[in-house]
Amino acid sequence: MNIKITGTGSYIPTEVEKNENFYQHRFLNTDGSAINHPNNVIVKKFQAITGIAERRYAKHDLNSSDLGFFAAEKAIADAKIDPETLDFIIVAHNFGDVKHNTVQSDMLPSLATRIKHNLRIQNPKCVVFDILFGCPGWIQGVIQAKAFIQSGMAKRCLVVGTETLSRVVDQHDRDAMIFSDGAGAAIIEATDDGSGILSHETGSYTYDEAYYLYFGKSNNQELDSDTRYIKMEGRKIYEFALNTVPKAMKSALDQSGVDIQDVKKIFVHQANEKMDEAILKRFYKLYDCDIPENIMPMSIQKLGNSSVATVPTLFDLVRNNKLEGHSLSKGDVIMFASVGAGMHVNAIVYRY
Amino acid sequence: MNIKITGTGSYIPTEVEKNENFYQHRFLNTDGSAINHPNNVIVKKFQAITGIAERRYAKHDLNSSDLGFFAAEKAIADAKIDPETLDFIIVAHNFGDVKHNTVQSDMLPSLATRIKHNLRIQNPKCVVFDILFGCPGWIQGVIQAKAFIQSGMAKRCLVVGTETLSRVVDQHDRDAMIFSDGAGAAIIEATDDGSGILSHETGSYTYDEAYYLYFGKSNNQELDSDTRYIKMEGRKIYEFALNTVPKAMKSALDQSGVDIQDVKKIFVHQANEKMDEAILKRFYKLYDCDIPENIMPMSIQKLGNSSVATVPTLFDLVRNNKLEGHSLSKGDVIMFASVGAGMHVNAIVYRY
Repeated sequence: MNIKITGTGSYIPTEVEKNENFYQHRFLNTDGSAINHPNNVIVKKFQAITGIAERRYAKHDLNSSDLGFFAAEKAIADAKIDPETLDFIIVAHNFGDVKHNTVQSDMLPSLATRIKHNLRIQNPKCVVFDILFGCPGWIQGVIQAKAFIQSGMAKRCLVVGTETLSRVVDQHDRDAMIFSDGAGAAIIEATDDGSGILSHETGSYTYDEAYYLYFGKSNNQELDSDTRYIKMEGRKIYEFALNTVPKAMKSALDQSGVDIQDVKKIFVHQANEKMDEAILKRFYKLYDCDIPENIMPMSIQKLGNSSVATVPTLFDLVRNNKLEGHSLSKGDVIMFASVGAGMHVNAIVYRY
Repeated sequence: MNIKITGTGSYIPTEVEKNENFYQHRFLNTDGSAINHPNNVIVKKFQAITGIAERRYAKHDLNSSDLGFFAAEKAIADAKIDPETLDFIIVAHNFGDVKHNTVQSDMLPSLATRIKHNLRIQNPKCVVFDILFGCPGWIQGVIQAKAFIQSGMAKRCLVVGTETLSRVVDQHDRDAMIFSDGAGAAIIEATDDGSGILSHETGSYTYDEAYYLYFGKSNNQELDSDTRYIKMEGRKIYEFALNTVPKAMKSALDQSGVDIQDVKKIFVHQANEKMDEAILKRFYKLYDCDIPENIMPMSIQKLGNSSVATVPTLFDLVRNNKLEGHSLSKGDVIMFASVGAGMHVNAIVYRY
């Protein structure tokens, strides 16, 4: 028995937030001091490092669970399944529903409950829950779905990643430019053909790294210190990712028995273009071979970092030939890899 | 292979909040109108229905992840395991860390990350994540641990339920008196003896029931309508629980093949004494037999409803002979059952 993705869907929010939209921001250092560069210089430097030119924000009247619902609907349609036959809906996120212009995370009920409710599924045997696992949450949800199927507890699962990071960014922090909104989803089922998940690897590094991403106060010291935002230790995360993600990918690939030369596409979490390129470089260096051309589809330039939504959205785009220069053929070996708050890393080797 | 609980721990907060402490509250109806009874009458009526005389609140400087850490430490010590050998830490909660006198849920990083960090576990192969599944989250975490072990993905898991509901109650809502703080934890492992989980059942009822428990504004219309609190449709939940929990319990028991007469203890989520008694009555009526004496340990009188913490705490108390009139012997068949936000219900039949 293999475990396979039989349908995908994604929701890319309609509101385009260009880098120029940040020219009016009052960016501050973490200690509240002014940054000694004009905003256009700050923004251009940001773009040179991260590759991000624009990102998407959800419309004000939509919440994370709505985005997830849209992506879920598409994945169900793509897989051509009756949603009543789903055994699990696993929803990965990190902040719940945060209504526009409010600061509370609403997770009562869970986002999985809201999505199942909106899908109008009646079957109570369709068990739904949320997982919090940082940006690698969607990949981890797929690994959990695999466990449920292998244990005999499920035959068919829906795994959704959805996030509205635009609602939790600090407008006075340059890192606000990284984050975006989105949702991706996939149907996971048992299969008897040779395709599907070949191997996977996960690591949780919490000893020193637990607070590399954290909920902290605004750089603007005049704002209420009880209101907190997504914050990151960018330099530490960069180094951490370079040290752990290639190794996790290698561990997964070695378990699969697939030759590095046979890997056709690598879908890496999109947090920073330079970081992803460095991860790829280190990964291929572990096998002493050159990086094949066009191996790593990138969406960060247009979509930013939408956390758990990034990998399933990127995969959905390539599956549907919506990312120029990238396509997939049956039998292709591909990889998924992610890194994020926890710090967690994970990777899947998959035969398409 | 069976899946067994090899150690338990709980943390009961030190601050006793007696019913009398609510005499000073200004209770209002949901429309903001005054309630035409003096507070001592309201509180006495509340106690007559729910059985709750007092409840526990966490000290102001402790958060949900701290409570969960304390319970986890005890479960690890009780199971006499090296925490570095844990393959998963699954933490069930519903509101994250809510600092005293603030309104935001802090889940960045996840509570599982914080607990692993505080346990000083170094092993990155110990994968940690949070699940949101309403009050039945801890039982569901145990079921997930079983799936991970059965699938070959794990040998040993720690499942924690932790919550500080005192931080999300509306002081103007009588239902505030129900909720409390606490944490419970268990180590789950594969075993070759005949004990452990015999069967389990879960249902997610989201079609009409999704918002029976929800995040809503204060009954005090003068307060900021963007600040929300735990809210419930008490009457609907009561009826829902009576209609679904006994059936889920029966489904689990029938799967196990155990005779109803051989069930020694039933650990039911403690939300309302009258409701739990009615659930028990209906459950035994499904088998046309009388309720055995002393079958259902109750902690609600002293501990209130601490959500995900309730069942593991109750089990830990009875295992350690800390609940008068209740004890367990090796080989006893026991049941766990819960109901909560989603609405979700679940049940486990277990040989001690």
